[in-house]
Amino acid sequence: MTPKMPRLHPPLSLVISTKRPLIAELFATYFLVFAGCGAITVNIDKKNLVGQTGIAIVWGSAVMVMVYTVGHVSGAHINPAVTIAFASCKRFPWKQVPGYVIAQILASTLATGTLRLILSGKHDHFVGNSPPGSDLQSLAMETIITFYLMFVITSVATDDRATGQLAGVAIGSTVVLNAMFAGPISGASMNPARSIGPAVVWNEYKGLWVYILGPTVGAIGGAWAYNTLRFIDKPLKEIMKGESQQ
Amino acid sequence: MTPKMPRLHPPLSLVISTKRPLIAELFATYFLVFAGCGAITVNIDKKNLVGQTGIAIVWGSAVMVMVYTVGHVSGAHINPAVTIAFASCKRFPWKQVPGYVIAQILASTLATGTLRLILSGKHDHFVGNSPPGSDLQSLAMETIITFYLMFVITSVATDDRATGQLAGVAIGSTVVLNAMFAGPISGASMNPARSIGPAVVWNEYKGLWVYILGPTVGAIGGAWAYNTLRFIDKPLKEIMKGESQQ
Amino acid sequence: MTPKMPRLHPPLSLVISTKRPLIAELFATYFLVFAGCGAITVNIDKKNLVGQTGIAIVWGSAVMVMVYTVGHVSGAHINPAVTIAFASCKRFPWKQVPGYVIAQILASTLATGTLRLILSGKHDHFVGNSPPGSDLQSLAMETIITFYLMFVITSVATDDRATGQLAGVAIGSTVVLNAMFAGPISGASMNPARSIGPAVVWNEYKGLWVYILGPTVGAIGGAWAYNTLRFIDKPLKEIMKGESQQ
Amino acid sequence: MTPKMPRLHPPLSLVISTKRPLIAELFATYFLVFAGCGAITVNIDKKNLVGQTGIAIVWGSAVMVMVYTVGHVSGAHINPAVTIAFASCKRFPWKQVPGYVIAQILASTLATGTLRLILSGKHDHFVGNSPPGSDLQSLAMETIITFYLMFVITSVATDDRATGQLAGVAIGSTVVLNAMFAGPISGASMNPARSIGPAVVWNEYKGLWVYILGPTVGAIGGAWAYNTLRFIDKPLKEIMKGESQQ
Repeated sequence: MTPKMPRLHPPLSLVISTKRPLIAELFATYFLVFAGCGAITVNIDKKNLVGQTGIAIVWGSAVMVMVYTVGHVSGAHINPAVTIAFASCKRFPWKQVPGYVIAQILASTLATGTLRLILSGKHDHFVGNSPPGSDLQSLAMETIITFYLMFVITSVATDDRATGQLAGVAIGSTVVLNAMFAGPISGASMNPARSIGPAVVWNEYKGLWVYILGPTVGAIGGAWAYNTLRFIDKPLKEIMKGESQQ
Repeated sequence: MTPKMPRLHPPLSLVISTKRPLIAELFATYFLVFAGCGAITVNIDKKNLVGQTGIAIVWGSAVMVMVYTVGHVSGAHINPAVTIAFASCKRFPWKQVPGYVIAQILASTLATGTLRLILSGKHDHFVGNSPPGSDLQSLAMETIITFYLMFVITSVATDDRATGQLAGVAIGSTVVLNAMFAGPISGASMNPARSIGPAVVWNEYKGLWVYILGPTVGAIGGAWAYNTLRFIDKPLKEIMKGESQQ
Repeated sequence: MTPKMPRLHPPLSLVISTKRPLIAELFATYFLVFAGCGAITVNIDKKNLVGQTGIAIVWGSAVMVMVYTVGHVSGAHINPAVTIAFASCKRFPWKQVPGYVIAQILASTLATGTLRLILSGKHDHFVGNSPPGSDLQSLAMETIITFYLMFVITSVATDDRATGQLAGVAIGSTVVLNAMFAGPISGASMNPARSIGPAVVWNEYKGLWVYILGPTVGAIGGAWAYNTLRFIDKPLKEIMKGESQQ
Repeated sequence: MTPKMPRLHPPLSLVISTKRPLIAELFATYFLVFAGCGAITVNIDKKNLVGQTGIAIVWGSAVMVMVYTVGHVSGAHINPAVTIAFASCKRFPWKQVPGYVIAQILASTLATGTLRLILSGKHDHFVGNSPPGSDLQSLAMETIITFYLMFVITSVATDDRATGQLAGVAIGSTVVLNAMFAGPISGASMNPARSIGPAVVWNEYKGLWVYILGPTVGAIGGAWAYNTLRFIDKPLKEIMKGESQQ
C-alpha cells in the first residue's frame, strides 16, 4: 500500500468522521424512539392491542433495522451507554462521545415530541421510564440486561471470529428478548437517551437516574466481560495460516 | 473486458428491462395484498384471532419474501411510492415508472377482487385504508413511516457498504414494526397501490388521497435523506485499496 | 477437470442419490408434522394458549429449520406437492418421485401416530384438515397459497441470481404468513402428506381430496409461473464476465 | 504449511482450550436461564402478559444470540445434553465434559438465584421443570424434542455442506418451536442444566430425573441419527474439485 492517500485530504476525512455519523445517529435514534414509544402509546390507548410481545418486537426490530441501515455510517450505537462503553475499552474515540450522546438525546426528545404532537388529546400517555417496583430492583435489572446487550454487541460487532453478517439480527434479538421479560419489571430501557427524551417532553424526571446509571454501568461491564474472552484479534486458523506463510 | 457483447443485442435486452420485471411486480404485489388484506379480513371475521401482531408479521414477511423472490428480477418495489422515490434520485428510469405503477395497482386490485370473491358472504369486510382519526394525523403518520421505510431501503439496497444479503430481512422488519404501531393510528399503508386496490373493488375512496400523498412524499424524503449520508459509492477501505493499486 | 472420478463408482453414487435422501425426508417430515400438529393439539387443549400466530410460527419455523438441516442431503422437499412440481419442470427425476412421496406420507402418519399416543385421553383431537367452509373455497385458497409457496421455493432455491443463504428464511416465512391468514379459511395445509397422515390415523377422509388436489395444482403452477421470469441460468453480470474471459 | 508453530506453545494453547470456553459457557448459560426463567416468572406474575409465544421466543432467541456471541469461543453448548452428545460421537473431548457441565449447571443455579433475589416477595414462583402430566409423557416428549434439537445442531454446526452462517438462526428457531408446542406438555426443558438450577434454588427435585434422562438420551440419539445422513466431510462438488486438482 502506498503511504500517501491524496484524495482523502484532512478536511474531507474530518467531515466523514464527524458530521455524517452524527446525522446518522440522529435519524436512527429518532426512528427507534418514535417506533418504540409509538407502540407503547398505541398499546395503552387500544387496550393492550399490541401486547408485550408486540412492543418487544418493535423495539428489537427497530434496533436491528438501524444496525443494517446506518451501521456502516456511524456504527449505529443509537444509545449513549453503548457509545460510552465502546470508548471505555478504546474502541471509540472519547472526543467523539459528547457529539454522539447529544445527537442521541436530541433525537429521542424530538421523536417523543413528534409523537405527542401527532397523538395528542386522549392519546396523551407518558411513555418514559419510571421504576414500576423499587428503584433498586429496576437498577439491578437494567444493569444486568444492558450488560448482556453490550456483551453481545462487543462480540458480534468487534470480534473478527464472530459472524459479521448476522450481527444486526443477534443485537436486535437481544433487545427483543430483554424487552419481553424485563419490560414489566423495570421498563427495559437499556438506553439513557430513550429514557431522557420522554422525561424532557413530559417534564417527569422521577427515577430517571436509574435509567442513566444502570445501563451505563451495565454496558461498560458487558464490554469488559467480553474482552476477557477475546484472545487475539484473529481466529486460531488464521494465526496458523499466518505462521506458515512467513 | 472486451467492449463488444454480441449475445445481448438491443431487442433482447429491451425484453429484459421491460416485460419480465412487470410480470414480477404483478405477481409480487398480488401476493403482498392478497396475504395482507387476507389477514385483515380473517381477523375481523374471527374476532381478533390473528391480532395486530399477526397482521403486522403477515405484511412484513410478505414484503421480505418478495424481496428475495423477485428482487433480482424487478427490484421488488411492489409499491408505487418506492418506484417514484427511486426515480426521483435517478436510481430508476422515469420512463419505466408508469409501467411499474400500473402493474402494482392492477395487481392490488386483482388480489383484493380475488379475496372478496373467495371470502364472500359474511366475510365481506372493506380492507382498504381510511383515516381512523383526522386526515392530518394519518397523513403525518404515513409520511413519517414511509420516510423511514425508504430510508432503510435506500441504504440496504443501494449502498455498497451495507449488508446486501440481509436487505430483505431489514426491509421486511421495517414493515412489521411500522404496521405494528402505526396500524391502529393510520392503517400503516405505506403503499398507494395497497390502498387503491381495495378502494376500487369496494368503490370507497374516502380519504384515499392521504395514502397516495403521504407515502409518496415520505418515500421521496427518505431516499433523499439517506443520500445525505452516502459519501461515495465505495467504502473507505476499498478507496484506499484502489489508490494503492494504481 | 479430469474426466474420470474413480472414487465415486456407480453403486456408491446410487446410494447417495436414493437412500440417504429418503431417510432425510422421513426425519424432516416427521418433525414438521409432529411439531405443527402438536401445536394444534395443545392449542385446542389449553384454550387457545398457542394462538393462531403461534401455530403459524411453529409450522413455518419447522420448515425453515429442516431446509437448513437436510436441504443439502435431500433438498428438503418434505411435501409431495413440492416434489411433483420440481419433477414437472425437470428439476427432479420422475423416477425418484414415488420414493420421496412414500417417505413423506409415511413420516406424517408416524408423527401423527406418535402424537396421538403421547397425548392420549382428553388430549385426543383430530389434527387433520377438513374444509371449514365450502370445499371450493378451501380448494381455491390451498391452490393460491401453495402456488406462492412454490413460486418462492423455485426462485430462492433454483435461481442462481437469488440469495441462496436466506432461502430457508424466505421459504419458512412464506409458510408462516400463509398459515397465519389462510389457516382459519382452509387449514393452510399446502402439503398433501401433512393432510394424509392424520386422515389415516383418525380414519377421517372427509374433504381430503381438496388438500391433495389444491396443493399439487398450485405448486405446479407456481413453479411454472416463476420459470417465465427466469431468463437464463446466470445473472447478467456473470454473462458479461464470461464473454470477456473468452 | 510449516510443521512448527512456535507462538502457540503448549501452556498457552491449554489456556485457550480450557479456561476461556468455560467462562463463555458460564456467561452464556447464565443469560439463557436468567432470560428464560425471567419470562416465566413475569408471565405468572402479570397474568399471562408474555404468553406461551413470548416465552418460547425468549428461550429460542437467547439460544440463537449466544450461538453468535460465544459460538466461536466455546461452541456455545450451554446445555449438558449437547456437550455429552457431541462427546458421544467424538466431536468433543470427553475430558472437557465435566468442566463444561459444571459451568453450565453452576450458571443456571446462579441465574435462578439472582432472579429469585431480584423478584422476591409476591414474584416468588418456582420456575423449574416438573412433569405437568405423567412422568412417562414428559419423558417421551423431552426425548423427542431434544432428539430433533441435536439433529439440527449436528447438521448446521458440523456438516460442511450446511449453511454455516445461519446455524444460530436454525438452532434458535428449533428451540422456539419446541418450546411453543411442548411447553404445556412437558415444560420443554431440552436442557438438564436449565432444570437443575431452579431445582437447587427452590430445593424441589420432584420429577427432575425426567429432565436429565430425556434430554441426554434424546440428544445422543439425534446426533447419531444425523450422522447416518452424513456421507463424507466435504460436499460432492469439492470432492470432484479435489480429484481434478491432483
